[in-house]
Amino acid sequence: MAVVNPSTLSVGSVLAQEAEFSSPLRLVSGQEIGPYRLAYETYGRLNARADNAVLICHALNASHHVAGSRPDNPDDIGWWDNMIGPGKPVDTRQFFVIGVNNLGSCFGSTGPASLNPATGQPYGSDFPVVTVEDWVHAQALLADRLGIHRFAAVMGGSLGGMQAMQWAISYPSRVAHAVVIASTPRLSAQNIAFNEVARRAILNDPDFHGGHYYAHGVVPRHGLSVARMIGHITYLSDDDMAQKFGRSLRGANDYRFGFDVEFEIESYLRHQGEKFSGYFDANTYLRITRALDYFDPARSHGGDLAKALAPATAAFCLVSFTTDWRFPPERSREMVSALMQNNARLTYAEIDAPHGHDAFLMSDPRYHALISEYFRQVHRTLGRTDD
Amino acid sequence: MAVVNPSTLSVGSVLAQEAEFSSPLRLVSGQEIGPYRLAYETYGRLNARADNAVLICHALNASHHVAGSRPDNPDDIGWWDNMIGPGKPVDTRQFFVIGVNNLGSCFGSTGPASLNPATGQPYGSDFPVVTVEDWVHAQALLADRLGIHRFAAVMGGSLGGMQAMQWAISYPSRVAHAVVIASTPRLSAQNIAFNEVARRAILNDPDFHGGHYYAHGVVPRHGLSVARMIGHITYLSDDDMAQKFGRSLRGANDYRFGFDVEFEIESYLRHQGEKFSGYFDANTYLRITRALDYFDPARSHGGDLAKALAPATAAFCLVSFTTDWRFPPERSREMVSALMQNNARLTYAEIDAPHGHDAFLMSDPRYHALISEYFRQVHRTLGRTDD
Repeated sequence: MAVVNPSTLSVGSVLAQEAEFSSPLRLVSGQEIGPYRLAYETYGRLNARADNAVLICHALNASHHVAGSRPDNPDDIGWWDNMIGPGKPVDTRQFFVIGVNNLGSCFGSTGPASLNPATGQPYGSDFPVVTVEDWVHAQALLADRLGIHRFAAVMGGSLGGMQAMQWAISYPSRVAHAVVIASTPRLSAQNIAFNEVARRAILNDPDFHGGHYYAHGVVPRHGLSVARMIGHITYLSDDDMAQKFGRSLRGANDYRFGFDVEFEIESYLRHQGEKFSGYFDANTYLRITRALDYFDPARSHGGDLAKALAPATAAFCLVSFTTDWRFPPERSREMVSALMQNNARLTYAEIDAPHGHDAFLMSDPRYHALISEYFRQVHRTLGRTDD
Repeated sequence: MAVVNPSTLSVGSVLAQEAEFSSPLRLVSGQEIGPYRLAYETYGRLNARADNAVLICHALNASHHVAGSRPDNPDDIGWWDNMIGPGKPVDTRQFFVIGVNNLGSCFGSTGPASLNPATGQPYGSDFPVVTVEDWVHAQALLADRLGIHRFAAVMGGSLGGMQAMQWAISYPSRVAHAVVIASTPRLSAQNIAFNEVARRAILNDPDFHGGHYYAHGVVPRHGLSVARMIGHITYLSDDDMAQKFGRSLRGANDYRFGFDVEFEIESYLRHQGEKFSGYFDANTYLRITRALDYFDPARSHGGDLAKALAPATAAFCLVSFTTDWRFPPERSREMVSALMQNNARLTYAEIDAPHGHDAFLMSDPRYHALISEYFRQVHRTLGRTDD
């Protein structure tokens, strides 16, 4: 007899959808972009009250493909498949879950590699700089299209958590719960510094061609690869790297006294960089890191985060990870403190997990138990909201 | 009446010297390099017993110009001038201090930019990979030349501290005190990862030309600049960066929605990168980061650092800084633990200083008081050694 562990169930094969928007989107920068397209996937079913929708916001390099596999590729599993599915922490038997690719990305939504209707050529560097507010604005228009007035939850990790936070600020009446994981209310100087080095590596690559590399049939893959390597170091904890790679040599018992791959960690990073530069768009990388730099809701309130969060009526669930040195627990505690000043409903957990920033993508049992329980409660309250 | 604070005194204007070595140096890699030249400076006077010499070993980007100014440029102050001089922690009225530029560097000693006698062209990528052991070996030959059998102290911070450690292991009878500051007995996977990204940035720069860029009249300045920016982030603490730069914008009150310099931290890093790429040799950068990667005295002792340090008879003074995340206090404690296993004479201080790894170059009062007191004791024992 086969015993099925529900936590291993998947939403199965999922076809991506597209929503076209003919009216231009007015951006925070003052520029407009349009017409534009958003790629998205959905899992589960929207209930009759349309109050069981959960929006999943993605981080730097992810997409709308959050869970399940793709019809054309059963091995292409969604980036948060361990979190979303039948019997998983965000249970698709109870919730209607939406994954959306952000504007400016490179996985189906309109971005720098898309054709600019004004020129018939890819936008390239003419694609505007988009912000977290802009993404949230576009996501809200998609929600309108899908008949969702109010989300049971908006949820994300890292940059995705910033979007969840921004939702609670921009559209208080449309978010019942904001689930903000491994995130920060603003980048630190060190965070910006790493982003800037990554951007320099891309901008200095001779194959960048001022952002119009598509026309040259090349991509700035060296620069993008270095950018990804830098990013990757900041996603892992020092200890985790030490445990996984240590000082192990690659394919040799002794030093070879050269600059080819010598240590396992070098091999791993190069591989990550090369793989990434093969599928990710450099112009998108520039824009998403800039959106990270710019996010700072307290900025227009004299640095007062509590004031920035004052409009929010959502209940918040915040999670941080002890070994995350990119967005360490201190950053989440700032949000907790601001939300407590506002008497917001709030759950906060600091998970003692070894995997650094990437922990938000892993299935640490305590972390997943917390999210499961949180969403069980969210589910219990469905139908009770009256706004 | 002018009151002179002795701590503000300088060794004054110092002329660099050169020592030529006609016999090739056999390197750890098995290669040989020679003839070769070492550039050095000295401050103070060697006493009659020749037992008051202190060797200062430099870190990645520094040189033999440790203290004082240069005859041709009074503004070119040595990199550790706050530490070395009359009345300073290493008092040049008592000690004969030597700064030496390491083999493979680019400030006067033979390195990749030097002419290869075999070809009449710069060595470029034909310059061998040198190690900490090789540097120490060459320094010992310089000491022979200067009539110094035994150093009162060998001292350095970061990579310089590794050399001090290696001296105590390689030449136990020639080092009375090893002063090892903000150092580590080996790089972590994360340390190697940062070095590797920096090297990729250089190696991928089209102006690198396989290391033979001298012949093309160019230098891989973009790659070297990115390398330096990465390094620089790891030298500063997160808090220090936050305090110095925070999220301040450069020359504007609002975001400009582009990829030019926007934040002060970006401006600072770009400036550091550009300045560095104007004077430092990329081939040297590759080699020095590799020497850092390779340093691991415990490696040939099955990872047992105490065994590696067993030959050492020197007294050790170790210092680490609480906010140094490049070589954090834990790394120094590993050395302390190994030395305690060996019943070595040992002083260890963890200085609570905000400046990250770079703290070893700053004049934190507690740090300098410690080094002052340590060297007063070293001075008191001069003449008493009998080996």
